[in-house]
Amino acid sequence: MNVPETVRAAMRTTNDLFNSQVIGKQDVNELDRVYTRNARILPPGAAMIEGREQVKAFWQGAIKALGLKSAKLTTVDAEALGDRVFEIGRADLLVGSVDTVTVKYVVQWKQEEGDWKWHVDIWNANQ
Amino acid sequence: MNVPETVRAAMRTTNDLFNSQVIGKQDVNELDRVYTRNARILPPGAAMIEGREQVKAFWQGAIKALGLKSAKLTTVDAEALGDRVFEIGRADLLVGSVDTVTVKYVVQWKQEEGDWKWHVDIWNANQ
Repeated sequence: MNVPETVRAAMRTTNDLFNSQVIGKQDVNELDRVYTRNARILPPGAAMIEGREQVKAFWQGAIKALGLKSAKLTTVDAEALGDRVFEIGRADLLVGSVDTVTVKYVVQWKQEEGDWKWHVDIWNANQ
Repeated sequence: MNVPETVRAAMRTTNDLFNSQVIGKQDVNELDRVYTRNARILPPGAAMIEGREQVKAFWQGAIKALGLKSAKLTTVDAEALGDRVFEIGRADLLVGSVDTVTVKYVVQWKQEEGDWKWHVDIWNANQ
């Protein structure tokens, strides 16, 4: 992993925001601090979604539809590529009251307004 | 897209190999020319798989299990990041005799032995 510790700390801050605020408090407006303005997400079971407002609408619906209670994100590998970071990660989701689901993902990170944010985000479930 | 046309042509060659040889002729040994030696794939419904031999075993099983007949790959966006290329793409799969399935993917491309190959590969279905 060739990503400086300062950047890795910023990435952890963003990931923690997603879990504690977006999922934990169901506050999708906090996605302003998680995704870049022109972010693209590629969710399973849907076409690619472009732009932060559309991404917010997706998560608003998905959190309720899935009964998503928490999403613990763990970096498996991260490499600096040009001015971006390419991350492979693992998400441990709590869905409903007892179900846990393991998801893996690739995120391309980009710095925007001083913060490191998700610029491209694709995932799928292990099961 | 800031990827030189020479690189894009090399990417098309690799993608065509996957469709015509690996899927069309069920010849997984041609994956030597598609994936890097240390490639990682993140398939839906399974854990991450690391290393070209393990990737070959995955595709050997998946082509048969799915009845995969063709995989037409189309680049939606490609950007050069450092010495890699980050691609968002679309795969139109023919499964069995009539079913078509639309898949989207992210591939991190890396040059190895002069060829451009898939170094990290993650995908999911639109439906």
